[in-house]
Amino acid sequence: MKKFMLFIMATILIFTSSLSHAFEALPATPPIPADNPISAAKIELGKQLFFDPRLSVDGTISCNSCHNVMSGGTDNRAVSVGVGGQKGGRSAPTVWNAAFLSSQFWDGRAATLEDQAKGPILAHVEMGMPSADTAVKRIKSINGYVQSFKAVFGGDDPVTYDNIAKAIATYERTLVTPNSPFDRYQRGDKNAMSATAIRGMKTVSDLGCTSCHSGVNFAGPDLPMGQAFLQKFPVFPGSEYDKKYKLMDDLGRYTVTKKDSDKNIWRVPTWRNVVLTAPYFHNGAVKTLDEAIRVMAKTQLNKNVTNEQVADISAFLNSLTGEFPVQTLPHLPNYSFASIVDDE
Amino acid sequence: MKKFMLFIMATILIFTSSLSHAFEALPATPPIPADNPISAAKIELGKQLFFDPRLSVDGTISCNSCHNVMSGGTDNRAVSVGVGGQKGGRSAPTVWNAAFLSSQFWDGRAATLEDQAKGPILAHVEMGMPSADTAVKRIKSINGYVQSFKAVFGGDDPVTYDNIAKAIATYERTLVTPNSPFDRYQRGDKNAMSATAIRGMKTVSDLGCTSCHSGVNFAGPDLPMGQAFLQKFPVFPGSEYDKKYKLMDDLGRYTVTKKDSDKNIWRVPTWRNVVLTAPYFHNGAVKTLDEAIRVMAKTQLNKNVTNEQVADISAFLNSLTGEFPVQTLPHLPNYSFASIVDDE
Repeated sequence: MKKFMLFIMATILIFTSSLSHAFEALPATPPIPADNPISAAKIELGKQLFFDPRLSVDGTISCNSCHNVMSGGTDNRAVSVGVGGQKGGRSAPTVWNAAFLSSQFWDGRAATLEDQAKGPILAHVEMGMPSADTAVKRIKSINGYVQSFKAVFGGDDPVTYDNIAKAIATYERTLVTPNSPFDRYQRGDKNAMSATAIRGMKTVSDLGCTSCHSGVNFAGPDLPMGQAFLQKFPVFPGSEYDKKYKLMDDLGRYTVTKKDSDKNIWRVPTWRNVVLTAPYFHNGAVKTLDEAIRVMAKTQLNKNVTNEQVADISAFLNSLTGEFPVQTLPHLPNYSFASIVDDE
Repeated sequence: MKKFMLFIMATILIFTSSLSHAFEALPATPPIPADNPISAAKIELGKQLFFDPRLSVDGTISCNSCHNVMSGGTDNRAVSVGVGGQKGGRSAPTVWNAAFLSSQFWDGRAATLEDQAKGPILAHVEMGMPSADTAVKRIKSINGYVQSFKAVFGGDDPVTYDNIAKAIATYERTLVTPNSPFDRYQRGDKNAMSATAIRGMKTVSDLGCTSCHSGVNFAGPDLPMGQAFLQKFPVFPGSEYDKKYKLMDDLGRYTVTKKDSDKNIWRVPTWRNVVLTAPYFHNGAVKTLDEAIRVMAKTQLNKNVTNEQVADISAFLNSLTGEFPVQTLPHLPNYSFASIVDDE
């Protein structure tokens, strides 16, 4: 009921938010939940876990396999490939700046990064661990992890599924891409964006795109953590694109809530680094940014955009590519013989 | 014929090399071939390629997927998993210090790192590219790579399969783990190794292990690049281990040469960082180092080792774990829309 109210709230927001949307630069740091403070040791532990394929049942898939932080934070595939070559049903969203989102997953079903991190490890077609206990047992079998969990979380039994998720979420809160041309422009450097991009910025506002793609992450207003900003897609069904790109096959949030009102309802994805995260939409059906712009204008605003408008909007979206922080490659703690995966 | 002569040479070497083997510390840098000089830009390009899953047909498997440099340079699986969840037939050898080997692959069929790098990209069950041309086309479709290849290799058409391999091999020549306790001991720090490890060092020499596990990489004498140091495994067939661990199912070098004399012939693997690279042997059938020590003593030297000898040898092998250099995470050049993998 609470979630349904939030959806209603969000829907109202769309229609009441001003078209002359106030653009916002990306803050240097995302919100940090009170029950999971950041520390350098926790970041490092989370980074190890994020890159460790031993969190998957057969030791082949890490978080980074699909949310590749060496590039745009996705795998640039329509849908991801998990253990045993299995394909998922939705396109991997970027992990970059995900810490600024007030809800996670395409359907917004996780309130926090911590909740999100617990999903793929246990998803049959992703990392495929049969249970949280199995994942915990695997990590406990690696002595280096046990030592790090003790140092970071303390207590008698620090290796828990909750703490695995807390460490991963903490690392993810460092995955921020500041200083995009747009951000520099917002902060006063009027030469940071091209004239085309500036025109595109006005166009997305005039057309109404920013009614939903608002907030610091262009993914909806900056709601309190856990409140999903959702939207129907397509808002205007019936265009050529529905069938061409199978836009309505996946019922979105309905698959979680089973409420008719949640059919084809989705969390609004970020625009930041969007040029790095093709192919587009929940099913990755659209390969190019230009086509994605046309599809969105038609399906969400019932507007046909001109080639010039597409070029302007594309230039603006290109100006949202930020600076990727230099990171060291994690060194994973040595397995113990008990942690060696046995396929037999 | 030349290769057969080398095998004969190598076999003779085994029987003529002194049992009181002269141990050698790891040099800071490996041999560099004259036709592929090292440069900082080439290392960085090679690192990007090494970590880039776009070198696989479906964009999911990179060199690092199986030769994970975040850990011991392997995937710690019996056999690796390639595109589409397919399993290979042999265990991934470590990439760390591979630059010191005079031949590559378990059967020594590649003379150089450059030759080796060309294999897995095209192997059906590994990265699965249908042809070298397809791999080149993929890399050419990524503008950032084209620019880097131009800067590194020059010429009108720098993105070639040869140059892809040269860049990867150059990065791999930086994957060196110096300053193991053994190396520090060799250089005069007599406190670097424990008494147990020192006893183990004498044991491997006395038993005859170092007849084959010699040279700076404990993988055979330091032959000129391209000359394979090979050995039969098991030398003494008929033990309980043959069947238990299916040691003779894979005919080794015979699968390449189809010569009877090459049946169950293998390149001698390195001992460096061996404690990080379980499970052991070409088929990854043995999970623990202790058992691997017992199997080798029995099958190669027809000796039953005591538990104390196993403990000593294990301590010595533990002293061969080196220092892993701190590396930055590569930032992969952005795809172009043409490089997006289409499963349809």
